[in-house]
Amino acid sequence: MSKVIVVGIGPGEYEQMTVKAVNALNSCDTIVGYTVYVDLVREHFAGKEMLTTPMRKETQRCEMAFEEAAKGKTVAMICSGDAGVYGMSGLIYEVGEKYPGVEVEVVSGVTAALSGGAVLGAPLMHDFAVISLSDLMTPWEKIEKRLAAAGEADFSICLYNPSSKKRADYLRKACDILLRYRSPETVCGTVSYIGREGQAGTIYTLAQLRDTQVDMFTTVFIGNSQTKVIGGKMVTPRGYQV
Amino acid sequence: MSKVIVVGIGPGEYEQMTVKAVNALNSCDTIVGYTVYVDLVREHFAGKEMLTTPMRKETQRCEMAFEEAAKGKTVAMICSGDAGVYGMSGLIYEVGEKYPGVEVEVVSGVTAALSGGAVLGAPLMHDFAVISLSDLMTPWEKIEKRLAAAGEADFSICLYNPSSKKRADYLRKACDILLRYRSPETVCGTVSYIGREGQAGTIYTLAQLRDTQVDMFTTVFIGNSQTKVIGGKMVTPRGYQV
Repeated sequence: MSKVIVVGIGPGEYEQMTVKAVNALNSCDTIVGYTVYVDLVREHFAGKEMLTTPMRKETQRCEMAFEEAAKGKTVAMICSGDAGVYGMSGLIYEVGEKYPGVEVEVVSGVTAALSGGAVLGAPLMHDFAVISLSDLMTPWEKIEKRLAAAGEADFSICLYNPSSKKRADYLRKACDILLRYRSPETVCGTVSYIGREGQAGTIYTLAQLRDTQVDMFTTVFIGNSQTKVIGGKMVTPRGYQV
Repeated sequence: MSKVIVVGIGPGEYEQMTVKAVNALNSCDTIVGYTVYVDLVREHFAGKEMLTTPMRKETQRCEMAFEEAAKGKTVAMICSGDAGVYGMSGLIYEVGEKYPGVEVEVVSGVTAALSGGAVLGAPLMHDFAVISLSDLMTPWEKIEKRLAAAGEADFSICLYNPSSKKRADYLRKACDILLRYRSPETVCGTVSYIGREGQAGTIYTLAQLRDTQVDMFTTVFIGNSQTKVIGGKMVTPRGYQV
């Protein structure tokens, strides 16, 4: 059957995949993905045909998936986290316009805002904004505007792609924008290697976070004005009477 | 073992639970939750002790979970979607201060922004904001401020709790705020009964959405300025060259 299933595999560990994602990878003919993600699932789906492309070859990766599917296969295109949050499902629909005979299906997964949030406690219990600090495809001015808007309107904020070699100071710049609207004591947190070897969560104040160097495997959480620390966990109350 | 595990069960169907959530419900002694959510999982975990409380009894539900756990049990407190997005994990940490001998763990699930997004296509591929229109515990002025901020900064937006009997016109009011910043042609969508009997996704323009009556089982998506319709799907491009 000519079909591409875009599958969010969650943060990395097998147990955090949905049953639907496991079933899709078990029943497909071919798994396609970025090398690092394919390596995360390889041992659990041994014997399955697997095709990889390196980072920044996203359009080619999607075309590869459709070319394989066009041969009559069911192809699973895997993404870390959710397929629809900075994942591949959007690009699959765009590239898919050239392959009208291939069906597309999306299987959701647990994105880092959720899996990382669970490590820290409950940072996103109320309204929240998800912002990527990567300016590879988004002008930095637009990112700044979104940071300021989320800061001013008291959203909890989850930052994806907070750093890279070329963007070592982006988290500091983001914190400086948020400090215009939030107290330096605002509760923040970072989670690295979610669901993988070396998983680590740390709580900071916003002032401390500003001076913290994170890597590209880290997800950052900034609390709203009500967020507090309870027993070492970052908790944003929803407003229930306790 | 005295433990409360807060488990996000995803949108409703068994297949959209994570493997970790399934394992937690299989291995716990008691499942606690709002009646409707317990009914969603009942058939898959037959024979398990299940305790329910009605809606708006959230604090009592958490206390019940801790009281059971304090007897030496492992208790799974279930939430629809993710435990940490308008779920129970925050309140569990707050109530848990009274039960220092009970361990707390959070198991993430697929929240409606992700599962509903997958039904519509890929509406949240870029930066997005999640806002609840329920003013039960949040002043409406704060909700309005967040809608305006998200609208002005060109976030894709996912609205939870868009309507209820007492709030029949809240979606219209939210759309009117967004129409100050977005074109009436902005691509929007709604998904009802995600992962359940009767699941339905519909694409609208923002102008059409304004005049649409939705119910409390609906999640609403408002595209950003770049969101388009591709083959009947709502797709927010991330910016890759196609």
